Amino acid sequence: MRVNAGELGRLAASVLVAHGTSTVDAEVVARSLVESNMLGHDSHGVRRLGQYVRQLHSGQIDPRAEPKTEVTRPGTVVVHGRRAFGQLAAGHAVRELRTLAGSHGSGVAAIRDCNHVGRLGEYVGTLAEHDLVALAFGNADPTVAPYGGRERRLGTNPLAWAVPRAEGKPPVVMDWATSGVAEGKLAVARDRREQVAEGLVLDAAGRVSTEPADFYAGGVLLPFGGHKGYGLSVLIEIVGGLVSGTGIGSMPGYRGGFGTVLMAFDIAGFLPAQEFREQTERFCQELTGTPLAEGHQEVLVPGEPEERVRHERERDGIPITAATWRELNGLLRTEEERP
Amino acid sequence: MRVNAGELGRLAASVLVAHGTSTVDAEVVARSLVESNMLGHDSHGVRRLGQYVRQLHSGQIDPRAEPKTEVTRPGTVVVHGRRAFGQLAAGHAVRELRTLAGSHGSGVAAIRDCNHVGRLGEYVGTLAEHDLVALAFGNADPTVAPYGGRERRLGTNPLAWAVPRAEGKPPVVMDWATSGVAEGKLAVARDRREQVAEGLVLDAAGRVSTEPADFYAGGVLLPFGGHKGYGLSVLIEIVGGLVSGTGIGSMPGYRGGFGTVLMAFDIAGFLPAQEFREQTERFCQELTGTPLAEGHQEVLVPGEPEERVRHERERDGIPITAATWRELNGLLRTEEERP
Repeated sequence: MRVNAGELGRLAASVLVAHGTSTVDAEVVARSLVESNMLGHDSHGVRRLGQYVRQLHSGQIDPRAEPKTEVTRPGTVVVHGRRAFGQLAAGHAVRELRTLAGSHGSGVAAIRDCNHVGRLGEYVGTLAEHDLVALAFGNADPTVAPYGGRERRLGTNPLAWAVPRAEGKPPVVMDWATSGVAEGKLAVARDRREQVAEGLVLDAAGRVSTEPADFYAGGVLLPFGGHKGYGLSVLIEIVGGLVSGTGIGSMPGYRGGFGTVLMAFDIAGFLPAQEFREQTERFCQELTGTPLAEGHQEVLVPGEPEERVRHERERDGIPITAATWRELNGLLRTEEERP
Repeated sequence: MRVNAGELGRLAASVLVAHGTSTVDAEVVARSLVESNMLGHDSHGVRRLGQYVRQLHSGQIDPRAEPKTEVTRPGTVVVHGRRAFGQLAAGHAVRELRTLAGSHGSGVAAIRDCNHVGRLGEYVGTLAEHDLVALAFGNADPTVAPYGGRERRLGTNPLAWAVPRAEGKPPVVMDWATSGVAEGKLAVARDRREQVAEGLVLDAAGRVSTEPADFYAGGVLLPFGGHKGYGLSVLIEIVGGLVSGTGIGSMPGYRGGFGTVLMAFDIAGFLPAQEFREQTERFCQELTGTPLAEGHQEVLVPGEPEERVRHERERDGIPITAATWRELNGLLRTEEERP
């Protein structure tokens, strides 16, 4: 079935409200999840609601907590997430960074006690729309082996980076896991009983595997791009984990959650934002007009595949399986109401 | 033959002095080049001297220019490289960033009119030794095709990132080209008549090639890591090129050189640097102790392969071919003195 974004958002918000979230907060979180669905990142979409409901009941997410910000230096801020929804804490970080980068030209925000924030691309995209260059990264529970190893030492540790294009166009947004495949996307492949490409997963004995189930049976994800992607993941693990106070996922003292750090600077500190936007736009056109390599059909700019899905889903709605729809509706009932 | 670092550095400095560089500046540049050799990055080492001498004579490098810094906002600085050696301009950027990040917690430096800076890892490594988290990236002449394309639209656009380990240990330094192979390393393979792996080069018709010469005959380099590495390269091209005022390599208005941007923040804005160093050190030990995947012999931390080469070359000297040694000595003579 296909569901439009408004309907799916209302259902998602109702689920969160049914489990103790205020209407205002539920709408922010629901909008963020549905936005991921709209861009085709279903692994980060409403599919997460089951996990969120479990975390609301376990206390991992505190629906009444309010994140607080603490400016520690003129260009650095700590957002105390206080185990509120990660989306709310990340929203605070974005607002603080706009202020810091606006007044000082640059700023860094780290989020403590942070739950799942959804798509990092959402936050860097918002900052880019305000004429900032923005990066974000974060560590998470260990699922990825270091290059050459067979045990879990790193999270999927995403990196996102955005800059503005022409007025009225969505920004250039890069947002990906430093693992070859995001765990959420592997779960989708497992559910669909699909194999994955070589180089993404090792089984528990450290052998190459194309079977998603091997990861869940004690195997590991691999970093993307060999030793380069591994290096990037190590730096994200260290900085995301330690600067946020979350800790390193595979080490003693790890507090769990999602060690999120955002960095931003004001384009106007270097050149007029309008000029930056115009030149970026011309370059994006140049990129998509590049003559094609053998075996390829097109060249896209980061963020364009997602915007293409958005146009399609705005027109046709978001594809939801009957099972997921039933599951989401089932989440509307609290434990006490269940038979 | 093997040459020790001191001797190679004196020769390199003498070459630069012979072509109009002051002794002080020549020593800085020579030290930077020899440091790349010491770490095994011969493509960024004294091999560059021939290029530098040509650029000194063409006016691309001005040996009498002195970089100037302009603090545009409390947390942003423009370094006017004024076509001095890139190593000198990058040194200014490092000193300014230490001041900015020290006083404000965070800062961003962009270098205008910047020549080849050598290894970006050198600059982020220095910043990390002063308890900062540091990133650096830059664009350069177009040699890399976008993912799916067959024409040159992007530079090899390196990304470097460093954090401190325990006192007395070299920092964790990640430093790599976002192309599958750096152009300098491809030139080394061509000179040695070696093939390269698939996925690094396309020939001029956009077909997969393992022949380094195909790149020099109108082919292209490919980004590392498929669409992910491509996305990273696009962001580096845009931000490195536009924020530095260098321009985008494949677009009108490109001024040439190396559009370098550095970002840094003070660890102490978030946690005591000593605690960060200790936890990073423990994690590095944990990584290298990871049980091995099938077909692998060890797990290393970013920066360790380079330090291993350093130990070997400190003991045995830097390997230099007789041809290179003759070429370097030949560069000691200025045009006028040549027969």
